[in-house]
Amino acid sequence: MSKSRVALDVMGGDHGAPVTMEAAAAISRDTSINLLLVGDPDAIARGLDSHEHDPKRIEVMPAHDVIGQDEKPRKAIDTKPDASLCRAMRAAADGDASAFVSAGSTGAIVLAAARWVPKIDGVKRAALAAVYPTKERRGNPDRFALMLDVGATVRCTPTDLLFFGYMGNAYASRISKVKRPSIGLLNMGKEETKGGEVLSSAHRLMKEDEVLNFIGNLEGNDIPMGVCDVVVCEGLVGNVALKMGEGVGEVLKSVSKWAFKQNLMWKAGLTLLARGLRQLKDITDYSEYGGAPLLGFARPVLKAHGRSGARAIANAIKVAAKADRDDVCGEIARAVAEFQARVDAPSRS
Amino acid sequence: MSKSRVALDVMGGDHGAPVTMEAAAAISRDTSINLLLVGDPDAIARGLDSHEHDPKRIEVMPAHDVIGQDEKPRKAIDTKPDASLCRAMRAAADGDASAFVSAGSTGAIVLAAARWVPKIDGVKRAALAAVYPTKERRGNPDRFALMLDVGATVRCTPTDLLFFGYMGNAYASRISKVKRPSIGLLNMGKEETKGGEVLSSAHRLMKEDEVLNFIGNLEGNDIPMGVCDVVVCEGLVGNVALKMGEGVGEVLKSVSKWAFKQNLMWKAGLTLLARGLRQLKDITDYSEYGGAPLLGFARPVLKAHGRSGARAIANAIKVAAKADRDDVCGEIARAVAEFQARVDAPSRS
Repeated sequence: MSKSRVALDVMGGDHGAPVTMEAAAAISRDTSINLLLVGDPDAIARGLDSHEHDPKRIEVMPAHDVIGQDEKPRKAIDTKPDASLCRAMRAAADGDASAFVSAGSTGAIVLAAARWVPKIDGVKRAALAAVYPTKERRGNPDRFALMLDVGATVRCTPTDLLFFGYMGNAYASRISKVKRPSIGLLNMGKEETKGGEVLSSAHRLMKEDEVLNFIGNLEGNDIPMGVCDVVVCEGLVGNVALKMGEGVGEVLKSVSKWAFKQNLMWKAGLTLLARGLRQLKDITDYSEYGGAPLLGFARPVLKAHGRSGARAIANAIKVAAKADRDDVCGEIARAVAEFQARVDAPSRS
Repeated sequence: MSKSRVALDVMGGDHGAPVTMEAAAAISRDTSINLLLVGDPDAIARGLDSHEHDPKRIEVMPAHDVIGQDEKPRKAIDTKPDASLCRAMRAAADGDASAFVSAGSTGAIVLAAARWVPKIDGVKRAALAAVYPTKERRGNPDRFALMLDVGATVRCTPTDLLFFGYMGNAYASRISKVKRPSIGLLNMGKEETKGGEVLSSAHRLMKEDEVLNFIGNLEGNDIPMGVCDVVVCEGLVGNVALKMGEGVGEVLKSVSKWAFKQNLMWKAGLTLLARGLRQLKDITDYSEYGGAPLLGFARPVLKAHGRSGARAIANAIKVAAKADRDDVCGEIARAVAEFQARVDAPSRS
């Protein structure tokens, strides 16, 4: 039985220990979540000195190395086994912790999880999920949507995509309390037969599935519209689409910054427009929303954005603890096991 | 030897003959382009009656059927051989015309071209290219960029992607007069090894190629930034990314329309913002830019957007005539032939 606590990679993220320690201290004061802080002992000690915290909820695991954002992930994992990211991941894998949070290199997190944390039985490929806020939707109190995979895979089998649906379904229903999450398959057309053999087979599997509330194929323009709670896609497609949206958001930002400088009337107009622009920004800039779950492993693995401030890190810790407590991984495991039992059944009868 | 003239599917597009005939009449008056008008003879006669035109430049080919935008493309092509789209395509294939333009169903155009028009020797897969304006770039007088494929394929081989590079290169240099078009490969990371076997092999082929000015991998956010002249991608990825961009643009449009109604101050601000918003709209709404070429065939095939007005149709006709005159297809054919000669050389020596 693993200890119910979150392993935090203290050294991860653009701001490192000063920001992660501020988040950790706040979590220890304001919640009942237990933390395993993994990183440079001096940096952790300094953080604990500077922030009021509850020592009962905090344990420290020293790690004397750090993986930088720009390091090649595979090489970093291979050559720095004592990096905070690696030790924190192994702590979650070994049962020293029950969940993992880092704002470090996405590539390193994906590889470290794959190396050390067992996958859910039957799951071949994990998925990195992007969480982004959308317009209000019926039955979705958090106005949140999930897109997965956005970068852990390149191409997938139909079964991989079905399982991504289970992962998104479990996450949306347990973390965001969406009653019966609507699931869409990202494709190049609405027709069932679109997108070649893999996508049309995935469509059929998802349509016939009893667990999923499958609404059919989506096209790219449906993503920012927020037409469903969970968007399922292969990693290459999801990654490009997500970044395309970010890019359009960045162009908008630079256009409006330029406009802001032009004159006061612009300024008046822009101040008034702020609400509308913010709404668009919310949709295009998923990174502001905090943690992106890496799903398919036996433990919750949360990746916070590199730019995260203390509040975003604290949010990611809360989500990881909630995912652990509400057994998101167990729900995924049950859906996968039931699917495999159904698939195996005919050959046994 | 085929007649140097453009076959126009008069019945295609949301507005049909009234708009295409207005465009055809203007082309006959204002340019030296010859036209083969394919469609319902009565509709063509009415169009010629209503618009001043130069009869020397116009011939008519009757076609008694029409393919609607919402028809299933394959069934339409199979059951309506006398549709204006099919007859116009066959005219281009048989040498009755040297280029093809339609604002009709994209799916039907792609299938009809594949059925009747010979592919360039060695080309296995054609590519549908989206043309979109970008920020100013050095050596690109038209501020235009090309993304291909955006929907004619699902997945491709590395050689297909290299050939898409040749197609985009020929089109950008001959139609848009870009001196040495920069070519990027859409991927999920900058590193050469990203994106699995197909994309990393395509990267290697394009990097080693002497024809292409290859700048390396692009990510989704590079598309709206306009970092290069030609974006090469598989159809599924390109289609989803393009529509994601359109979707963000649509969200922006609905947000700003809503804002416009709020009050006069908003209105003042928005009027002033119009330039900035237009700039973004240009980037996200490629459809306003006129024709999308379908490349890889022995004749220029231009798809105008369904919503095209007379000016956009006329633009597409001019582009098709220019592609024919400047031998875009021949340049692609030469690049492909030279590549195959290089590939075959070692085994012959």
